[in-house]
Amino acid sequence: MTGPTPRSTRVRHLLDELSWTEKLGQLQIVFRPSPVDAAQLVRDGIGSVFWPRSAASANELQRVALEQTRVGIPLLVGLDVIHGHRTIGPVPLAQAASFDPTMVQRLARLAAAEARSGGANWTFSPMVDVSRDPRWGRSVEGFGEDVHLTAEMGRAMVRGYQGDSLATHDSLAATAKHYVAYGQPEGGRDYGAADVSEHRLRNVHLEPFRGVVEAGAASVMASFNTVAGRPMHANRRLLTDLLKTEWKFDGVVVGDADGVRNLIPHGIAGGLAEAVRVAYAAGLDVEMGGAPSDVPVEEIAPGRIDPARVDDAVARVLSLKEALGLFDDPYVDEESERLEPTAEARRMVRAATARSSVLLKNDGTLPLRRPRRILLAGPYAESTDHLGAWTQSFAAPARSIADEFRARLPEAEVRVETGVGFLDDDASGIAAVVAAARDVDVVLILVGEPSSLSGEAASRSDLRLPGRQEELIHAVAEIGAPFAVVLENGRPLVVSGWIDRAPAVVEAWHGGTEASAAIVDLLLGDAEPAGRLPMSFPRSVGQVPVYYAHERTGRPASTGGTLTETSADVGLHGPANVHEKYTSKYLDLDLGPQFAFGHGSGYASFTHAAPRSSRDEISLVDLGDGIRVTLAVDVTNTSDRAGDEILLVFLEDVVASIAPPVRRLVAFERRTLGAGESATFSFELGSRELGFWATDAADARFVVEPGLFRLHVGPTLERTEAVELRVS
Amino acid sequence: MTGPTPRSTRVRHLLDELSWTEKLGQLQIVFRPSPVDAAQLVRDGIGSVFWPRSAASANELQRVALEQTRVGIPLLVGLDVIHGHRTIGPVPLAQAASFDPTMVQRLARLAAAEARSGGANWTFSPMVDVSRDPRWGRSVEGFGEDVHLTAEMGRAMVRGYQGDSLATHDSLAATAKHYVAYGQPEGGRDYGAADVSEHRLRNVHLEPFRGVVEAGAASVMASFNTVAGRPMHANRRLLTDLLKTEWKFDGVVVGDADGVRNLIPHGIAGGLAEAVRVAYAAGLDVEMGGAPSDVPVEEIAPGRIDPARVDDAVARVLSLKEALGLFDDPYVDEESERLEPTAEARRMVRAATARSSVLLKNDGTLPLRRPRRILLAGPYAESTDHLGAWTQSFAAPARSIADEFRARLPEAEVRVETGVGFLDDDASGIAAVVAAARDVDVVLILVGEPSSLSGEAASRSDLRLPGRQEELIHAVAEIGAPFAVVLENGRPLVVSGWIDRAPAVVEAWHGGTEASAAIVDLLLGDAEPAGRLPMSFPRSVGQVPVYYAHERTGRPASTGGTLTETSADVGLHGPANVHEKYTSKYLDLDLGPQFAFGHGSGYASFTHAAPRSSRDEISLVDLGDGIRVTLAVDVTNTSDRAGDEILLVFLEDVVASIAPPVRRLVAFERRTLGAGESATFSFELGSRELGFWATDAADARFVVEPGLFRLHVGPTLERTEAVELRVS
Repeated sequence: MTGPTPRSTRVRHLLDELSWTEKLGQLQIVFRPSPVDAAQLVRDGIGSVFWPRSAASANELQRVALEQTRVGIPLLVGLDVIHGHRTIGPVPLAQAASFDPTMVQRLARLAAAEARSGGANWTFSPMVDVSRDPRWGRSVEGFGEDVHLTAEMGRAMVRGYQGDSLATHDSLAATAKHYVAYGQPEGGRDYGAADVSEHRLRNVHLEPFRGVVEAGAASVMASFNTVAGRPMHANRRLLTDLLKTEWKFDGVVVGDADGVRNLIPHGIAGGLAEAVRVAYAAGLDVEMGGAPSDVPVEEIAPGRIDPARVDDAVARVLSLKEALGLFDDPYVDEESERLEPTAEARRMVRAATARSSVLLKNDGTLPLRRPRRILLAGPYAESTDHLGAWTQSFAAPARSIADEFRARLPEAEVRVETGVGFLDDDASGIAAVVAAARDVDVVLILVGEPSSLSGEAASRSDLRLPGRQEELIHAVAEIGAPFAVVLENGRPLVVSGWIDRAPAVVEAWHGGTEASAAIVDLLLGDAEPAGRLPMSFPRSVGQVPVYYAHERTGRPASTGGTLTETSADVGLHGPANVHEKYTSKYLDLDLGPQFAFGHGSGYASFTHAAPRSSRDEISLVDLGDGIRVTLAVDVTNTSDRAGDEILLVFLEDVVASIAPPVRRLVAFERRTLGAGESATFSFELGSRELGFWATDAADARFVVEPGLFRLHVGPTLERTEAVELRVS
Repeated sequence: MTGPTPRSTRVRHLLDELSWTEKLGQLQIVFRPSPVDAAQLVRDGIGSVFWPRSAASANELQRVALEQTRVGIPLLVGLDVIHGHRTIGPVPLAQAASFDPTMVQRLARLAAAEARSGGANWTFSPMVDVSRDPRWGRSVEGFGEDVHLTAEMGRAMVRGYQGDSLATHDSLAATAKHYVAYGQPEGGRDYGAADVSEHRLRNVHLEPFRGVVEAGAASVMASFNTVAGRPMHANRRLLTDLLKTEWKFDGVVVGDADGVRNLIPHGIAGGLAEAVRVAYAAGLDVEMGGAPSDVPVEEIAPGRIDPARVDDAVARVLSLKEALGLFDDPYVDEESERLEPTAEARRMVRAATARSSVLLKNDGTLPLRRPRRILLAGPYAESTDHLGAWTQSFAAPARSIADEFRARLPEAEVRVETGVGFLDDDASGIAAVVAAARDVDVVLILVGEPSSLSGEAASRSDLRLPGRQEELIHAVAEIGAPFAVVLENGRPLVVSGWIDRAPAVVEAWHGGTEASAAIVDLLLGDAEPAGRLPMSFPRSVGQVPVYYAHERTGRPASTGGTLTETSADVGLHGPANVHEKYTSKYLDLDLGPQFAFGHGSGYASFTHAAPRSSRDEISLVDLGDGIRVTLAVDVTNTSDRAGDEILLVFLEDVVASIAPPVRRLVAFERRTLGAGESATFSFELGSRELGFWATDAADARFVVEPGLFRLHVGPTLERTEAVELRVS
């Protein structure tokens, strides 16, 4: 059962030294607010704790572990560092919109340095669940709907947290979560069943985990959901046979909060002892929530749990502690704890927030041209709720957009009439907005979801702007005032009720500590909203799931449906069956989402030459030898300002042994080009990009099938040019 | 490859006699409107035709087959008889609401007699796809969300179509469709991918097919969708290995219209010849749509297609023709063709439509008490569109409800103000309804979906009443007029916008030829709306899929969510993780659907004694020996009128090796009790009811696991009493 990496002498020695009870102590983490309780748990032998909120208290717990336990093993100190510790960056979904893995890596590095300075050494991030249902609130915590983008961003975040070595003072052990298919809960209800085929599991949900495990993620968190009826905390096939054996993952599998206890309501275990035994046997290494402590010791005595399995788990935990350098020095320098963002940290997240924003539409209203009289409307005018889901009370707060505007434009007249709240069923304030709007150069409507509407256990059945916010937009549009809309939210929204009336819309997401500064940068043109959507915005909630990489149907539609078509006499009208009536769509909706994955533009404009390919044919043998095809596109910034262009490369597999996705992202690149500047974007594609997991047989195999492929390259899904590639 | 049933001497002789081309002819059916084309196809050797619309023309085609082809094999004459041929009964979803398999069987028998009298001998019905997404228009054609109900209704329909012998003048060969998982298209978009785990495939989607195959269904139709990426028309594992080998199905697998051609857009075949070869190799016996004829003969020569596979397919087709008695006499008596409903047929469907209706709510407004002045409002007041999806031009038409009321209550004043149309964005007629409503005893609001909004390729993203119909209800409610609402539709609707304002609501579905008579029967109390919903009505489209038998989550909610809860500091507040915040639900919706599966009442009222069980423990050995547990409930009609009660038995599997559904229907019974009458309902449960398909291993096995079970018995999901059963 031991993982493939040979364990050190120290670890092997400790395995001999530790008692059964001491070993089980290493396999638990408990979240407790009280420092007294935490110290007692450590004294009793627990191997990991949640961060006790300061470097001093973290050191104190390490001291208890080293000095007040028999063997003196240092602690893993876990903490949910999701998109920043003190300095909060944009939410992960926003970071994905940057299409900039280097930026994601730098943000994670910053977060790691801040958190490790306080004594934390283990974060439960990144989330690499592919999210295709925007109702699911936890979409905010991942990188959207695309497999490749999620994998790349996840790998970048792992590199950022872990750095070159876990043992440095600015690294955290990363946790890839939530393994697996947590991103597809039925109905978008958090904790719901994820019923997926082996085909989809391999090609969609597992693939980003494979990527981050390859990138060296130190741990993997089991998810709350079932896969094919089996809860992941009890899923031996996926935790052990696949993750640890097939992928040779030698890190720590940690449970999610109370995931083992949850096996009882799941109907998998008749009691807590059974739940604990089933979970460890399935391959869980560290239980989160204290379930083993609540079980009579004889229920989890040697024999009730396989000692070899326990030794394997303990070896994994101890090896991680060793990799973190904790056996050499578990303490941090309390004087160096980073309690406030540095100026450099603020600059970094401010640029990142701007870089993660998406210009959904723009008729030229943005950027603003030195406005003298501005009206800020909507609940985000005065709110400071910019940090987004999954930040904690010790995070550096954000300023309001109103304060930021006043500071940035001291000579302008900045009026504020919020008009409506986020959630209230009260539109009485809209009249004041309308009155004020008549007297200004521009109205900025700052609307969205408060942070509490996304994140864990925050599923919504209605994806529109909550409360009466849509009415505010309509009211301003009605009087003909020039305006732009800024959205802050943690998931794709349904904007179809108002989007056609807005001249310009920036999707700014929840941007973190420097969100307001970044938004003002964007509006004034000091920064460019050049990101792209990482997740499609549906036309209506009745359309979900809607995502670009959907499987090819046998009856594709070329146009949306209509309710008023007369009923056809189906049975005997043969030809009607192949006409547009009998295609895959809704009768009451246009085709496709409101804004697809990859949608977005920017303030600069670009032209693209036809893509050039280094070859139009390649053999399986050459692919097997690692030979890659190079695709190049010359891009010119034709505008009078510097700007960012993102090119996306989508694969179309024309004929395969399974119905392939209509398109699949296989490469992307973001670059900044000066006014008038040209550059060549280039991409390398090989077997990994061309192949997929074939699951027809009992075992899954990664295959590249011969035949015709098309590579569609362009700035968005709708604006691509294709080159063909034949694999022979 | 030959099926398990030994083929007759005639079939074996014909296999020797037929040329390759003649064999391939037997493996096709083409829909063509022109009789000339059909005759030529038969002359060219096609083995099956669509019904040419009269007994005389069917006989003529049989004559061509027998007299103008070399070998003279009679024809299968296929026809989509879905819920009636001339006499149309309620749509299948409505039939399921009756919870009365005997009625379903009789309706199918009537349809078979009518269709066979015209020369058809093969219907493409029943649909036993489990439908859990009401957006999918084809929900109308099946029996709803429940596995057991779907299986029982499907078996009843097969028994009805096929009778004791296929060779009689009043039987049709039945087709179980659409094999398999067609009822779970992604997003509810028809023809969309069905991505399901092996677990769900076995326990949900395959189970009704297993039931109808056991009941002797003569054929099975492949579905349009993919399962785990593989289109069913090319799915050898499910068509051959499972259906034909594991289940020993020896009938005919027929393709759906152009399902083979559709393999090209699916991305599975590079051209039509490949599509044809792949489909036959996968286990398709009869292609529907003429694909093989469009392929050069050398592309489907012996060797390109396995001759043994072709012989197997031909043997299946010939055996079906033999079972239908066609070799003895393929002709029908043209004088006996049933062109019009008989009085008996009309009585039967009228009673069936009433029996299939569901009383969603009633404050005593219904039944009406000899009303003298009635206002009929809504588009269904005057519409004759009651037949529902999947009926054809030769079906016997329905009358309007207005005409029916006038005929039934000649002395009453029956006013009609439709107010709104089905779909029009025009509410100007509502004023006239409101004006008229002030002067009447009762307003009957007759609203719904026209038939064209359900059925094939009729997915909706919005499940509310279309057009301005909801406003009509609000307007009538506003003035305080006494009213009741009658719904006619082919899927669950979202009624939450108005249901609380309506005093009484009858779900009448699309009821067929005698719908209006049945609806008047119901409203006047001459019949009772005592059915139960076969499919949950969601609170909002953002809640789908929502169905009662959902898998148990590890974090069940006990209450709905709220948008205004303050954000919790999740990471360090341990206990919060097990509080109600962190449960599976939406922030913006109450728990559960608006009306769950099994919802419904009636005009009579009943009391139920506590359920009695013949034993509280049973061994696996006894179960294996076929011993069953008897559950009995004494029911008394406490009202002063005869009425129908339906009892449902739901199984709760307390602990299992997979997360079991929260409840699962395992038995039901409907009985009529006179005023004051008592009766004992009884149910027998054995291993089939207690077990499930375990798919953890490479092979699926049907298992009964020891442990505690609860049997919840009652008239609806919310009103059950439980008895415990321990399996040891």
